[in-house]
Amino acid sequence: MTDFSPELQKRMSAAIATLSMDAVEQANSGHPGMPMGMADVATTLFTRFLKFDASAPNWPDRDRFVLSAGHGSMLIYSLSYLNGYQGMTIDDLKNFRQLGSKTAGHPEYGHVPGVETTTGPLGQGFGNAVGMAIAEAHCRARYGEDICNHFTYTIAGDGCLMEGISQEALSLAGHLKLNKLIVLWDDNNITIDGAVSLADSTDQLKRFEASGWDVTRVDGHDMEAVAKAIEAAQKSDTPSLIACKTVIGKGANKKAGTKSAHGAPLGAEEIAFARTSLDWTHEPFDVPSDVLDAWRQTGQKGAAARGEWDARMAKSDKAAEYKKALSGDVKEDLRNAISQYISGLIADPKKVATRKASEMALEVINEAIPFTLGGSADLTGSNNTKTSQTVALTAEDPTGRYIHYGIREHGMAAMMNGMALHGGVIPYSGGFLIFSDYCRPSLRLAALMGIRVIHVLTHDSIGLGEDGPTHQPVEHMSALRAIPNFYMFRPCDVVETAECWEVALNMTDKPSGIALTRQNLTQLRTEMAEGNPCEKGGYILSGGKKRDVTLIASGSEVELAMEAKTELEKDGVTAAVVSVPCLDLFMDQDDAYIADVLGDGPRVVAEAGIQQSWDRIIYTAGKGKGAFVGMTGFGASGKGEELFEHFGITSAAIAAKAKELLS
Amino acid sequence: MTDFSPELQKRMSAAIATLSMDAVEQANSGHPGMPMGMADVATTLFTRFLKFDASAPNWPDRDRFVLSAGHGSMLIYSLSYLNGYQGMTIDDLKNFRQLGSKTAGHPEYGHVPGVETTTGPLGQGFGNAVGMAIAEAHCRARYGEDICNHFTYTIAGDGCLMEGISQEALSLAGHLKLNKLIVLWDDNNITIDGAVSLADSTDQLKRFEASGWDVTRVDGHDMEAVAKAIEAAQKSDTPSLIACKTVIGKGANKKAGTKSAHGAPLGAEEIAFARTSLDWTHEPFDVPSDVLDAWRQTGQKGAAARGEWDARMAKSDKAAEYKKALSGDVKEDLRNAISQYISGLIADPKKVATRKASEMALEVINEAIPFTLGGSADLTGSNNTKTSQTVALTAEDPTGRYIHYGIREHGMAAMMNGMALHGGVIPYSGGFLIFSDYCRPSLRLAALMGIRVIHVLTHDSIGLGEDGPTHQPVEHMSALRAIPNFYMFRPCDVVETAECWEVALNMTDKPSGIALTRQNLTQLRTEMAEGNPCEKGGYILSGGKKRDVTLIASGSEVELAMEAKTELEKDGVTAAVVSVPCLDLFMDQDDAYIADVLGDGPRVVAEAGIQQSWDRIIYTAGKGKGAFVGMTGFGASGKGEELFEHFGITSAAIAAKAKELLS
Repeated sequence: MTDFSPELQKRMSAAIATLSMDAVEQANSGHPGMPMGMADVATTLFTRFLKFDASAPNWPDRDRFVLSAGHGSMLIYSLSYLNGYQGMTIDDLKNFRQLGSKTAGHPEYGHVPGVETTTGPLGQGFGNAVGMAIAEAHCRARYGEDICNHFTYTIAGDGCLMEGISQEALSLAGHLKLNKLIVLWDDNNITIDGAVSLADSTDQLKRFEASGWDVTRVDGHDMEAVAKAIEAAQKSDTPSLIACKTVIGKGANKKAGTKSAHGAPLGAEEIAFARTSLDWTHEPFDVPSDVLDAWRQTGQKGAAARGEWDARMAKSDKAAEYKKALSGDVKEDLRNAISQYISGLIADPKKVATRKASEMALEVINEAIPFTLGGSADLTGSNNTKTSQTVALTAEDPTGRYIHYGIREHGMAAMMNGMALHGGVIPYSGGFLIFSDYCRPSLRLAALMGIRVIHVLTHDSIGLGEDGPTHQPVEHMSALRAIPNFYMFRPCDVVETAECWEVALNMTDKPSGIALTRQNLTQLRTEMAEGNPCEKGGYILSGGKKRDVTLIASGSEVELAMEAKTELEKDGVTAAVVSVPCLDLFMDQDDAYIADVLGDGPRVVAEAGIQQSWDRIIYTAGKGKGAFVGMTGFGASGKGEELFEHFGITSAAIAAKAKELLS
Repeated sequence: MTDFSPELQKRMSAAIATLSMDAVEQANSGHPGMPMGMADVATTLFTRFLKFDASAPNWPDRDRFVLSAGHGSMLIYSLSYLNGYQGMTIDDLKNFRQLGSKTAGHPEYGHVPGVETTTGPLGQGFGNAVGMAIAEAHCRARYGEDICNHFTYTIAGDGCLMEGISQEALSLAGHLKLNKLIVLWDDNNITIDGAVSLADSTDQLKRFEASGWDVTRVDGHDMEAVAKAIEAAQKSDTPSLIACKTVIGKGANKKAGTKSAHGAPLGAEEIAFARTSLDWTHEPFDVPSDVLDAWRQTGQKGAAARGEWDARMAKSDKAAEYKKALSGDVKEDLRNAISQYISGLIADPKKVATRKASEMALEVINEAIPFTLGGSADLTGSNNTKTSQTVALTAEDPTGRYIHYGIREHGMAAMMNGMALHGGVIPYSGGFLIFSDYCRPSLRLAALMGIRVIHVLTHDSIGLGEDGPTHQPVEHMSALRAIPNFYMFRPCDVVETAECWEVALNMTDKPSGIALTRQNLTQLRTEMAEGNPCEKGGYILSGGKKRDVTLIASGSEVELAMEAKTELEKDGVTAAVVSVPCLDLFMDQDDAYIADVLGDGPRVVAEAGIQQSWDRIIYTAGKGKGAFVGMTGFGASGKGEELFEHFGITSAAIAAKAKELLS
């Protein structure tokens, strides 16, 4: 229900449409068509359904609204301003897309209140929304629907639906019967190249139905029809797709309904026409007070619901637990648990694959931190991401702390981003390192947003053996280190694995990946350290600061470096071994620390991958002398240990390079 | 029809199943379940339908068979051996998955005859098959169905169908009505984690139907039923999905129909049981002569069809044209056309964006090489990949040389791999550089296979401007250079753009990407060069070998380096500018050439991306002095030129760094 007359609602919608077209025109850049086409739908959603309070944008039980079609950013910016979110002014809209403005080309998480996630790369917001709905269902089941109970809405475009990631996300959403997920598809028949029919003739309703969704199609400009469809969707016991037939650039003249309205300013003539057809007599960026008042009322209407939620929280015996989960705070609980666990390992060393070591660490972590939410893209037994605390999260019982993501790496990563953004859970995944390629767009967005998602990436080198070069990562460590703000760990033994997990969990503003072996590795850390040496990314594992040569390695090659050190010592060469479980973190340290650890002599770096990300360390070695032991091309199919020999990644090779540098 | 009795057919199938389980057992590694489950389907396909001649594995008009579920590699290896392909022996099967053997863990293109593409990463083969079917439809329409007319079959698993890439590929396949594409889905209800129902409840038939496919479901162990379904599919005027209900690991005892049969040796007990239940009394790797004879007959049965094709080729007036296209030979035609085009540019220089320069070059190329097949992932007007010669390839008229791929980057890249493998076309794409992340798994496979696909990747830096950091590549040049055998070009002006296109087209065994600007760039190459300087990846663009400092750059930053050189000269500093349109190729050159070009003095490298892939050049600079001007993190939303200022990527910054190094 709404208190606003149909006429007022249409003017509220026109405010979105005109602000959008005017801001794009002023910026001389942007996408006017989508906000104009979806203004009616958005007005209906926000005025009648969306549970939110603009004065408390982070209220945990707000409905989530995700603009998956992120190029239509002026829609969400207009809404943020109109609803009266603090910090959003008309000047922000006037500065759309300008350097230093919060109103970036595509909506960015943390810049504008009301923007729940960074979108733009198509399909990502759709995946995020599914993840938010999973987190909501999980928290609702765990903590009670009195304190967690909200919808997740997303506006998706044709592009979102064409991207493969949408299939991965929608099929899991259907399987998990995420009934509080409602997708509003901007069914406008237009993409950048022209009519959708240039490239697709899919019956999208049938496609969603095939994965168990409720589907319907409405005239997206008929607000009552849209409202009825949303009402029905709210009552559905499955996720819902509402195809909203809209006209892109609605209100414009020749450009309405065409690709010309999509991604460029409309121009003065079309804008004048649109003003007339939308019956909008106001100057650009001038919103008449009755319309603005109505919107501001909309922005405040959730205050009562929020108050009731506060009251319920005060009464709930799960409130403390839920609050702790929402805070995401793990630091102290983790330190105690991990440090106790490591002292056990020091007393009783273990030679295990680091993927197994990760499972052992997770057993401790999942006990200490009850709000982790694990999973794997159908490699549970290989990734070792399921522990005794985690049963499967299912449609029937969403309290489970483990998600069988299916063979859907990309969807998994996007959903995890949504979960982290929703809060109440810390998502971690399982996959092969090679398949990080499948989810790279979502990893990048996690890095851009600065959110804590942790990807367990096992089978991290040719050490995986017989599966061969299609499954052997070679360039992946370098390629993932290349993503700004994404942190790649590659621990060398059972102790470092636990420490890396701790560091990753403590980095609340950074996504990370943990590369883990299939093959067993000797425990090299046999003495209790003070604190967590992995926090600095790299440290001297063995040897003194005075040395002839420094051997630097990560993961499985640290053991080889240790053996090489012993071999060198026999020949009277003093070596230090530097373990670098996280090169990204190591390079974040100050110059003095780095210089101290690396020494001023020759350096040999060993990693069973390509050299690229190590070049800086190799070529800045003292006396200009650095060398690398690793891969120069793709791997091969064969037994892991034979492959290390075959590709010359051995302790003997490391020792030989060291001697060569010293000669 | 088949001449083999039902009993013999079952034994032919059992030969596949037992060879597969025995080879996995011997290797103590591999996936027995899928070949055992699909042996009946494969036997039916190969004995009754597949048009091929084992003595001529590259016969252009053979039916294509793609094992998208590549982990079931023993299926295709068994078939290759049984059908009598030259070079495949029983010893190759015995050496399954061993170092140096051609029978790698997953099927690799070029290793085993009959393997049409490298598969393993799920969904890729499915995408390849769609691409092959597109190439076939295109060539059939262009050159006549007398000389091109064959089916493309693929076996896909549940994993292939869950991966998002399958949605991208199937929806385009349906849209283009690829009626000669037939997908045999190994509908065994099992994935690695267990039952498919753990993670999915999609009605796959309905999903495919939604995109215009013919669908049916059969008992995959009923050869007559399978045969009838394939017959019907061959007659369909749309692509066809045949869901083959199978039992994974069929024949085994407790493991049959369970995840235990998927990815590990069955063990002696289960194998003994399977021998009995398959009525197979022979020793491992022993195929009785009647079964082997029947298979060898199968391998030869296409000889007649091939003879008839030869006869039709001899008569066709399109044969010469088709042969030329199949040869893929472009070198001479290209040299003449490009060199003539460049002399025009020298006479009349052009300041254009390199994306526009690429369009101008393509105009020349598409005229000179009539078998290029372009396209874009819905960014035609931005990528500038459509030229006057290329009209859209549609279901109604597949002769078009331009594909509207839709918003499907990953599917596009996988389909292009399939087209290149099919032959008769040289595929090139269009997309934004940022979205190379979406198709990275397919780019990697192209590199592993060593095939010629060319990706036009526009909007290659912060220069794209207001679309902001979600769309601004920063780490992508480094991350793509990291892929072995993948060649990234980034030309600096209109001349280099044409030259890079020429080099990319001439590299028949390498995939490549061409990074192009949105913004205009001055033509820096104003004199006619001998040959193509871009062939060596980098060269001295301006200045002599004697110099105080070397300024090294790619793409849009070369212009800045040229300006910096002028600024430095005013202060009496001699600089040379090195343009590096392809760092990968440059590093392939011999040390002497590289040293000659880079000089022995200080170096400043400029690229509007991260530093990683340049570290080697920076830190090996003479006197240890190198510096970088580029990005250290994500971009921002704003006007392109303002962003270059904001992030300090300017000629002044380059000149300042140079002076700093010299001081």
